[in-house]
Amino acid sequence: MAVATAILGASGYSGQETLDRVLAHAQLELVALGSDSLAGSPASVLDPRLNASLPAFVTNDDALAAGAELVFCCLEHERAAALDPPAHAIVVDLSGAHRLCEPELYPAWYGFEHPAPTALDTWEYAIPELFPAEGSLIANPGCYATAVVLALAPLVEVIEPTGVVVDAKSGVSGAGRTLKASSHATSVLENVSPYKVGSHQHSPEIEQALGFPVCFVPHLLPVKRGLLATCYVTATGDLRDSLEAVYASTPAVTVLPEGIAPALSRVQGTDGAEIGLFTDRSTGTGIVVCALDNLGKGAAGQAVQNANLALGLPETAGLRLSGVLV
Amino acid sequence: MAVATAILGASGYSGQETLDRVLAHAQLELVALGSDSLAGSPASVLDPRLNASLPAFVTNDDALAAGAELVFCCLEHERAAALDPPAHAIVVDLSGAHRLCEPELYPAWYGFEHPAPTALDTWEYAIPELFPAEGSLIANPGCYATAVVLALAPLVEVIEPTGVVVDAKSGVSGAGRTLKASSHATSVLENVSPYKVGSHQHSPEIEQALGFPVCFVPHLLPVKRGLLATCYVTATGDLRDSLEAVYASTPAVTVLPEGIAPALSRVQGTDGAEIGLFTDRSTGTGIVVCALDNLGKGAAGQAVQNANLALGLPETAGLRLSGVLV
Amino acid sequence: MAVATAILGASGYSGQETLDRVLAHAQLELVALGSDSLAGSPASVLDPRLNASLPAFVTNDDALAAGAELVFCCLEHERAAALDPPAHAIVVDLSGAHRLCEPELYPAWYGFEHPAPTALDTWEYAIPELFPAEGSLIANPGCYATAVVLALAPLVEVIEPTGVVVDAKSGVSGAGRTLKASSHATSVLENVSPYKVGSHQHSPEIEQALGFPVCFVPHLLPVKRGLLATCYVTATGDLRDSLEAVYASTPAVTVLPEGIAPALSRVQGTDGAEIGLFTDRSTGTGIVVCALDNLGKGAAGQAVQNANLALGLPETAGLRLSGVLV
Amino acid sequence: MAVATAILGASGYSGQETLDRVLAHAQLELVALGSDSLAGSPASVLDPRLNASLPAFVTNDDALAAGAELVFCCLEHERAAALDPPAHAIVVDLSGAHRLCEPELYPAWYGFEHPAPTALDTWEYAIPELFPAEGSLIANPGCYATAVVLALAPLVEVIEPTGVVVDAKSGVSGAGRTLKASSHATSVLENVSPYKVGSHQHSPEIEQALGFPVCFVPHLLPVKRGLLATCYVTATGDLRDSLEAVYASTPAVTVLPEGIAPALSRVQGTDGAEIGLFTDRSTGTGIVVCALDNLGKGAAGQAVQNANLALGLPETAGLRLSGVLV
Repeated sequence: MAVATAILGASGYSGQETLDRVLAHAQLELVALGSDSLAGSPASVLDPRLNASLPAFVTNDDALAAGAELVFCCLEHERAAALDPPAHAIVVDLSGAHRLCEPELYPAWYGFEHPAPTALDTWEYAIPELFPAEGSLIANPGCYATAVVLALAPLVEVIEPTGVVVDAKSGVSGAGRTLKASSHATSVLENVSPYKVGSHQHSPEIEQALGFPVCFVPHLLPVKRGLLATCYVTATGDLRDSLEAVYASTPAVTVLPEGIAPALSRVQGTDGAEIGLFTDRSTGTGIVVCALDNLGKGAAGQAVQNANLALGLPETAGLRLSGVLV
Repeated sequence: MAVATAILGASGYSGQETLDRVLAHAQLELVALGSDSLAGSPASVLDPRLNASLPAFVTNDDALAAGAELVFCCLEHERAAALDPPAHAIVVDLSGAHRLCEPELYPAWYGFEHPAPTALDTWEYAIPELFPAEGSLIANPGCYATAVVLALAPLVEVIEPTGVVVDAKSGVSGAGRTLKASSHATSVLENVSPYKVGSHQHSPEIEQALGFPVCFVPHLLPVKRGLLATCYVTATGDLRDSLEAVYASTPAVTVLPEGIAPALSRVQGTDGAEIGLFTDRSTGTGIVVCALDNLGKGAAGQAVQNANLALGLPETAGLRLSGVLV
Repeated sequence: MAVATAILGASGYSGQETLDRVLAHAQLELVALGSDSLAGSPASVLDPRLNASLPAFVTNDDALAAGAELVFCCLEHERAAALDPPAHAIVVDLSGAHRLCEPELYPAWYGFEHPAPTALDTWEYAIPELFPAEGSLIANPGCYATAVVLALAPLVEVIEPTGVVVDAKSGVSGAGRTLKASSHATSVLENVSPYKVGSHQHSPEIEQALGFPVCFVPHLLPVKRGLLATCYVTATGDLRDSLEAVYASTPAVTVLPEGIAPALSRVQGTDGAEIGLFTDRSTGTGIVVCALDNLGKGAAGQAVQNANLALGLPETAGLRLSGVLV
Repeated sequence: MAVATAILGASGYSGQETLDRVLAHAQLELVALGSDSLAGSPASVLDPRLNASLPAFVTNDDALAAGAELVFCCLEHERAAALDPPAHAIVVDLSGAHRLCEPELYPAWYGFEHPAPTALDTWEYAIPELFPAEGSLIANPGCYATAVVLALAPLVEVIEPTGVVVDAKSGVSGAGRTLKASSHATSVLENVSPYKVGSHQHSPEIEQALGFPVCFVPHLLPVKRGLLATCYVTATGDLRDSLEAVYASTPAVTVLPEGIAPALSRVQGTDGAEIGLFTDRSTGTGIVVCALDNLGKGAAGQAVQNANLALGLPETAGLRLSGVLV
């Protein structure tokens, strides 16, 4: 019997992509599509490809009250922080509202006082390949953080914990559907620029997951989807062995053979990630590169993967594991 | 009286851009346009905008023998290495053939044995703002190296010389006009990938200019022109002071005000560079970002700027110093 | 029992995309992967995502001799024209070699004398929604022709057959993997230009399918995949009725509701097509717009769809019918 | 002595580009920079490259009252329609507010009742190469209309006035700086779609300039700047002769030699236009293609060119006539 599923904030990019995977998932049944701005409209207002038989949009409050057994929360950070999770439901929060354990980090990195600080420890920060959730409240990692943690968490015993640099590059969908000057196509096309330099909110999330701080700088790319994190480390042991031990048989994460570099094009539109490993000839620095789709493994794909594990369903049910070949 | 000028390898991207600046330069007069593949054709075969009154293409040998007082050599590396510079002419070599002082680096980084190793010390590696040429044989720096050296050379006294990481990103024109799979638009669009990871030929050039090795990783961007180098350093003194002292009044290089990040879009189509400075909140790492146009300040623009200084002409004659505002 | 399937020319874009669909197709089994340039190499040389268990590349001759029941021919036009189809196999030719009934059109539009002119009438030009194949030799339509014929064939009774204009725009993958200056990313990015103006080889194919000539002009877009044909007609009857009658329940072709325009983004990576219908306010001209993916419905997707019908399999088996939502 | 110049609406794209040309113009002196949203801020808020010595932003009312002899009005259509032009000044209106002679067209095509209908005939619709202004109130043509009128106005005697189709494609800057979903980079990248199909406000402007209606359909391209209009006509005389007679010595408009197609890349960032001419092999249809930069010849460049003629200055003063060669 299918699991009754609701999506809150279904009109944003991560909501839309979650919807896509829920519709492709044989064991999930969409019962409520929440969006305060689109409440009352048919699903097809979002995209003419969406079937007339889908539930129409309702408010997020109504979607939350629809009695779903599985709730994907794709609301913005501050709104999600105030969410009152329904009892007995599995909730996967794709926002940053429940990722950080220490509530005092929220004002500094997210710009708001957390409205439910004591509830933070009821949520688990979960990456299926590394630390799958055990309970029912799941904080789904950020897109950048997913890439960095996939690349570096298996290496914490074989690298120096200081001096780690992460230079990351993301497609513009990572900035969300909200209209802003920096996402205007005239600003994005034929341009690349670093942003939130040294102060991006995924920094503390990465530090929490790895156990040490890294210098993390994101850049905006003139691409629609996809994210690449180039991580620079000082190796004290065998990086390849450590990575391959963790990702030997993970369906969504692949360690590339020697000499092959990750590429956005191979992960776009998928819920997978690629990791490549190199050594700098001049300095011996270890270079670990991770590519994923910010809306796939970096958001909706991982959310569904996390939900699958929590529900005891096949890990990759509903996931997009293969992109186009060209 | 105008300086008779020849361009060798005028049909490649850097040759074409050099031609553009020579034509815009009141004190230079184009006397020979060399290209072995286009010899015999009118200049307009390269681009219908080129005027019928320009000299037609001749072979590179003929262009070299045309008696020019100023020669821009835009040949490929190995071909340029074998160049026999005419006496009494100023020669600016845009290739990598004369940038490295130690001939034994060529086989390892460029893949060929240098044909004129003893002549290497007759060439000067020149960046106008930092180390202008004093003689007549000028090795024009590489695009990546220009960005990195502009960003870091003024800082060598105020940063740790170890652990420097440079993550660089370049538009596809940096790979030249030669047809290759990696420059095919289907490979480039909606894609980003690191390449020559840890083994790019600009590494030893950067090391030579700075006095210490850095970990340098280039990435290919889906943009036509422009290059961004994000440099990660451990500061031991005031980075901003050191940069501003050097670039207080340089017409082609600007240090941006606090909080403003360099952007490809502002330097594309120009011969200028922008440098921005940041500190990572988590680790204190210094972040120095330099943006320039790989074909402008990273190639043809700097070549003409170097030639201007060598000829005693105004430094910016013929340069493109302002791009479009949108 | 699965149908033994061979792909000739599997290393080109349409070959690669055909491979992708064959691998996703439960009733087809790949038995031979032909490519003269890659013969002897494992499938993963084409893309690291391809599984080690796939057949390695063999020559096209060997692939043809492998005894497959279904052969996809993705060779270039002239090479495909000389193909000797194996008896008892279904052959789907994705090239243009068997699309035109009149052999004398080949020199003029394709630049070669057809080597097997008398065999041309053993091939059927097939579009599943309009004229499905009845035999075993199938000429799969061109990408542009598919879009134009899908848009206009249902309208031949309700439009004037003269004065039809088709302005088409295609992503760069339509030009194939072969390296050429016009497919170099520096030529493609931030550029749009018409090409083969008034003389593209899909013109006679469109004329043959519609029964009258149209003025057809293709343009190259700075996108990877996708094609849009904007067709201008003088209506003599109800265009919407005629289109909806044909495409009422076709799984791969959708007529969009009033007011919604086709968009590349909704068909990219899919084997579907969208058709939109408009009337010009000033002149009353009918405007029929068709969008599809040049490598999907415009090539590999339609090839597999044609094969499914010929084999009596479900029409959409192996097809990609849904792209990403963002 | 320099002409005192004011720009209203200087923070939009056309305002910014006009500013760029005014700053490059030796005979114009910027005295007022109007923007209601930026009033009180230094010019550098718009772009860090803008010099500290420029006038700070003031309100548009203050800029209009600054006593300039030349006023560029870059306000939005409805706001510009209400403009009270200062006596004795030359005013160039880049909006659509004064382009149409018949006020009753405004509600239907622009969506507002014209506030000053009787003043419309005090304005002249001016294209320097075709119909230069004679008075001081100049309605600067729309970007699409400029391309179409440049291509077709010289041909009105040698083509059929019925059945003309114009399929136009524009970069996203043509839609202005205002934030809207259709200009979000995620919507624009890897996408192409027709918009305002059959109902774009440049249709009546084109009809007024040519004397007959055309079927005009614009498409949005994933490029920053540049516009291409492909015009389909039935020729009754020699098109090339007619075009070359008009553009034999025009500095900003070039008729390309036989066989060469216009390309966005050659006109981007410039104030010039390229026209190419072809005949369809199947139908004999005449194909006239015009490329220009929507912000250059399609807006700011033509505005300054119009102003130059009105002021008796050299026609191309301040214009950008050459783009980059690569």
